[in-house]
Amino acid sequence: MAIVVQKYGGTSVGDVERMKRVADRVQRSHKAGNQTVVVVSAMGGTTDDLVGMASAISSSPPQRELDMLLTSGERISMALLAMALAERGVEAKSFTGSQAGIITDEVHGKARIVDMTPARLQECLDEGNVAIVAGFQGVSRKTKDITTLGRGGSDTTAVALAAALGADVCEIYTDVDGVFTADPRIVGDARKLDSVSYEEMLELSAQGAGVLQVRSVEFGRNHGVRIHVRSSFSYRTGTWVGPQEDKVEDAIISGVAHDTSEAKLTVQHVPDKVGVASQLFAKLADANVNVDMIVQNVSQEGATDISCTVPRGEVDKATAVLEPLAKQIGAGDVIVDSDIGKVALVGAGMKTHPGVAAKMFSALSDAGVNIQMISTSTIRVSVVVDAAQVEDAVRAVHDAFDLGEEHEEQGAG
Amino acid sequence: MAIVVQKYGGTSVGDVERMKRVADRVQRSHKAGNQTVVVVSAMGGTTDDLVGMASAISSSPPQRELDMLLTSGERISMALLAMALAERGVEAKSFTGSQAGIITDEVHGKARIVDMTPARLQECLDEGNVAIVAGFQGVSRKTKDITTLGRGGSDTTAVALAAALGADVCEIYTDVDGVFTADPRIVGDARKLDSVSYEEMLELSAQGAGVLQVRSVEFGRNHGVRIHVRSSFSYRTGTWVGPQEDKVEDAIISGVAHDTSEAKLTVQHVPDKVGVASQLFAKLADANVNVDMIVQNVSQEGATDISCTVPRGEVDKATAVLEPLAKQIGAGDVIVDSDIGKVALVGAGMKTHPGVAAKMFSALSDAGVNIQMISTSTIRVSVVVDAAQVEDAVRAVHDAFDLGEEHEEQGAG
Repeated sequence: MAIVVQKYGGTSVGDVERMKRVADRVQRSHKAGNQTVVVVSAMGGTTDDLVGMASAISSSPPQRELDMLLTSGERISMALLAMALAERGVEAKSFTGSQAGIITDEVHGKARIVDMTPARLQECLDEGNVAIVAGFQGVSRKTKDITTLGRGGSDTTAVALAAALGADVCEIYTDVDGVFTADPRIVGDARKLDSVSYEEMLELSAQGAGVLQVRSVEFGRNHGVRIHVRSSFSYRTGTWVGPQEDKVEDAIISGVAHDTSEAKLTVQHVPDKVGVASQLFAKLADANVNVDMIVQNVSQEGATDISCTVPRGEVDKATAVLEPLAKQIGAGDVIVDSDIGKVALVGAGMKTHPGVAAKMFSALSDAGVNIQMISTSTIRVSVVVDAAQVEDAVRAVHDAFDLGEEHEEQGAG
Repeated sequence: MAIVVQKYGGTSVGDVERMKRVADRVQRSHKAGNQTVVVVSAMGGTTDDLVGMASAISSSPPQRELDMLLTSGERISMALLAMALAERGVEAKSFTGSQAGIITDEVHGKARIVDMTPARLQECLDEGNVAIVAGFQGVSRKTKDITTLGRGGSDTTAVALAAALGADVCEIYTDVDGVFTADPRIVGDARKLDSVSYEEMLELSAQGAGVLQVRSVEFGRNHGVRIHVRSSFSYRTGTWVGPQEDKVEDAIISGVAHDTSEAKLTVQHVPDKVGVASQLFAKLADANVNVDMIVQNVSQEGATDISCTVPRGEVDKATAVLEPLAKQIGAGDVIVDSDIGKVALVGAGMKTHPGVAAKMFSALSDAGVNIQMISTSTIRVSVVVDAAQVEDAVRAVHDAFDLGEEHEEQGAG
């Protein structure tokens, strides 16, 4: 008997009718003889409504209470799904993150899973029932408080459960058919990928491809969980995420991701001394700011500009840390630019194919896109550009590497 | 330092603005140096919305999942209230029923509290913070599942916490000024009572005066919790509920309650044998049906009619039990009449004043109200009448005993 973990996002359970369709799908898995665990997000819109009420009450609500508030959303959707299954004669029990044994650290708003004790779920499955689990949430081992896993945390809940239960597959249901070579809303001929390696998916997720939370991919890679990203609106095969050797095609480039949710911070005239940069980023880490790209210019006259990108929602937190520190170390002003976007080219093949970065930069240049920052890994090249030019940049790069539907895959070098 | 438990109902926390007013009031108690515990209901309307979604999915949703669904309502209101307090510089922490140590049996939908372990609340208070607790909910000791305490259960949460924490007072905030001699919407000159004994309050609550859940009054009486029922929209003194000796006035009659939420069931031609009636009601109890009034007619030709009232929502459950049983014991049909109402006169003084019942019946007769059933306790006389005549009956009885605002209290005998 196979163990299947299915995760449905907020759009898939967006209203009562959609909830019933999800119940049909779960019933199908259950009837096929699978031990089925379902992870659900809050119904689409619910989280926004709750955040709206919180904002009306407080400009900076305590994180503990924000977590308490937001976790009510999954509670609603999971109970309704259990009812829809009962109506179909399938016995199902819903479990909060805490009841499901999702144990986290105590960082409210972006807690990390530190342990999984899904004994109650196992018992539920052994009784022949479907287990429904609230995504996105856990409970702190130390404080016993309710925590949330951050945006997209339900993906991580699902993959972590799949790992803990030794599931055969973790199906991530979403409103698109899988992982694409670029966002189909921007690039008309973007192509669905049949498979992608954990490493590539990590880079794609980190660079803004919204289908999977980065941490869920890390979890999948670390525990060898086979992930199937697919649409809840069709029965078509989606994109499989797994080890490199599972890949059915061996393209050099997997896709182009983009992200317009970040802002650029620049600390000007930082004295060029050992340890100064590390001090800046240590303080940001202490304040739980997620720093993404970092660029340091060549030193001129004993001072240098250091730029980094952070999620736009964390800009205030970051400047509150950086401004006093800049004064203290004798640096200049802290400049914030929220009008930027990030475009990244990802592909495991680029490791062995030189010239990918050069070809990308030249495509951007031909399209009249100015590059503000560059950062690379062995399987990724990212650039920061003006927000208004992000879509042009995505299209230019996607075209340059012939990633679209109509073309054969071609080399990049 | 006094310990104060405050409970706010759904109307009091009905929207963001009202939530802020509640926060002002809590802050006032906290500033006055009280260790303050706040019990909140779901925001007005939330529970109805949730029930509406459940009904759209299932005609008979599993009770376990209904409890899981409904308890999200308090979670929302308590987190928002904690935020509103934080905004005012008052540190507050919210706790689910489970976190607050409200341990129940496993009867979903109307669980009973079997133990209180409020260690986390005590710790929160000892740290100088306000503790906010989700009303209406607990956790089953046996199954570890979330349970709810039934309609009005937040009152019981509050009084039970007041008992467990040894609170000096349990303030029940509502949208009226206190307990009245009759429903002011029906009786124009209904008068607010300054105090009422536990026993009278029990009868008033049981007979339909909606201000306090019956079980909360039982809890208060058993543990000597002084309860103050008052308005969340003013700072006026409300009605104190306490031991008989606390009463400031010693009227014979406290008030007239009414209830139109019940239906009458009659089992016809029940064979007049020992044990038959007890069998009927034992089966109803097993099915968790709340039987209220019971009347058995004088036996004629070896058979008798037995009538009882039950909450209208439990009629189907009750007939499902009674119909096969009636056949089995050789009785006749089971007749359901949903078109009834209950009117009750309550007063500790009637114990020692004969003639109260007679005066009530004659007042009803003068008003043209036909009495269908009668039931009495030492401090209460209840009658079942046609639903359409309930309001007339309440006014007639209220007048007959001179309970109104403008009059002096008069003897009844």
